[in-house]
Amino acid sequence: MITSINPKVTLVGAGPGDPELITLKAILALNTADVVLYDALIDPVLLNHAPATALKIFVGKRVGKHSTTQEETNQLCVGLAKRHGHVVRLKGGDPFVFGRGAEEIEYIEAFGIPTAWIPGISSAIAVPGSAGIPVTKRGISESFWVVTGTTSSGELSRDLVLAAQSTATVVILMGTKKLAEIVQVYQQAGKSDLPIAIIQSGTTNEEKIVAGYISDIGKKAKEAQTEAPAIIIIGEVVKESVKLAEVYREVVKIEIR
Amino acid sequence: MITSINPKVTLVGAGPGDPELITLKAILALNTADVVLYDALIDPVLLNHAPATALKIFVGKRVGKHSTTQEETNQLCVGLAKRHGHVVRLKGGDPFVFGRGAEEIEYIEAFGIPTAWIPGISSAIAVPGSAGIPVTKRGISESFWVVTGTTSSGELSRDLVLAAQSTATVVILMGTKKLAEIVQVYQQAGKSDLPIAIIQSGTTNEEKIVAGYISDIGKKAKEAQTEAPAIIIIGEVVKESVKLAEVYREVVKIEIR
Repeated sequence: MITSINPKVTLVGAGPGDPELITLKAILALNTADVVLYDALIDPVLLNHAPATALKIFVGKRVGKHSTTQEETNQLCVGLAKRHGHVVRLKGGDPFVFGRGAEEIEYIEAFGIPTAWIPGISSAIAVPGSAGIPVTKRGISESFWVVTGTTSSGELSRDLVLAAQSTATVVILMGTKKLAEIVQVYQQAGKSDLPIAIIQSGTTNEEKIVAGYISDIGKKAKEAQTEAPAIIIIGEVVKESVKLAEVYREVVKIEIR
Repeated sequence: MITSINPKVTLVGAGPGDPELITLKAILALNTADVVLYDALIDPVLLNHAPATALKIFVGKRVGKHSTTQEETNQLCVGLAKRHGHVVRLKGGDPFVFGRGAEEIEYIEAFGIPTAWIPGISSAIAVPGSAGIPVTKRGISESFWVVTGTTSSGELSRDLVLAAQSTATVVILMGTKKLAEIVQVYQQAGKSDLPIAIIQSGTTNEEKIVAGYISDIGKKAKEAQTEAPAIIIIGEVVKESVKLAEVYREVVKIEIR
């Protein structure tokens, strides 16, 4: 029997870490995958949603070690779609939130291969949420700003200077290495007393939270030895977390003395 | 047989509209629901994930007509959890993104009832995405700012003035009634040429997009008669959408003449 191949690439967001935080639409796409290309942040249990016969290929990037370059991944998508049919490109978080999803789609479509995009739960919202921190709360924060710590130029986004002046909750992805610079921006804006938390491996069993103020977070992060992947969240909403009540109660006590 | 009741309330984000954009975790929560309280923005098909015997109660707000107040909904959650056990509060989008999720959790926990929170795909990211607009793209936008058009005071968030000065993609939820004011903020920042799109009923079959520039969006929105629920997205990334290529190509032609 000869079956014709219909090349197609679906970019799928797998969510922030917890394998149950994937969408039904993503599962249905995986169910029909001929090939799955997956990232380092993907829980392997998610691959079980794909047929046993589907090819499963790791194309992850790990800090300091690029196993597959972006260009290679793009080429793989195109080549595998032509040879095998439906390629699911499974990425952590949401492909359009600092995920290079738009670039991958552009590349693949230039070869005449149809693409689809399935959003994922972004760690920018869900990681603070699972730590009990709402990115918005009436009367406390009426906006939130999601910034990358690592821009394409390697520098801290200059938008952070404006963000530090606003009442927005600021969420910084991929920013742990820039913590000292971030702290400096907020100190220059006169906001040393603003609550800040660093959440490592959020929504998973390995979740680790360090919380404090702009003034002491540098010391605390060093002591706790936080590592990537982690997200940084800055704003009064951090205090709203029941999980972090101890942190902020303690500091108040010290101030009273 | 006497079964004891274990009251519990789970706040569940149902996602932006497409009923397949709900998470596996949300479906599993619905599977064990004794009661489902659902919003106006919920696709009724989602109620099928709950047992046939579960109570399904509509507590939605519709523009200009509040069928159930926030206080009544909070009280319902508590009362129903005590009487029936597991209450799933199913909300459109994500409960922590302008969803009053944090307030509801606070209210319910004050009665000693355990709560859980399951994030949903936020329309702030997924609605632009499904219209082909990535909220971030390397070299074009390295941050995005999500603002509500309707703050608790009824006024436009003042953060928008800072946002208009930044290079951030700005996403405004519940802002269609404030379009004229939003346009004015951007014009005052000297950004009349910035691309802007209004997306109504995003990710659903009723999706309707109006796109243009700060300078002409007011007129276009009036002609197209856009209505809530809709989201507004402002920034150079709007031009990246293949779906909107015609809009921006046309304008360039006119400028050449």
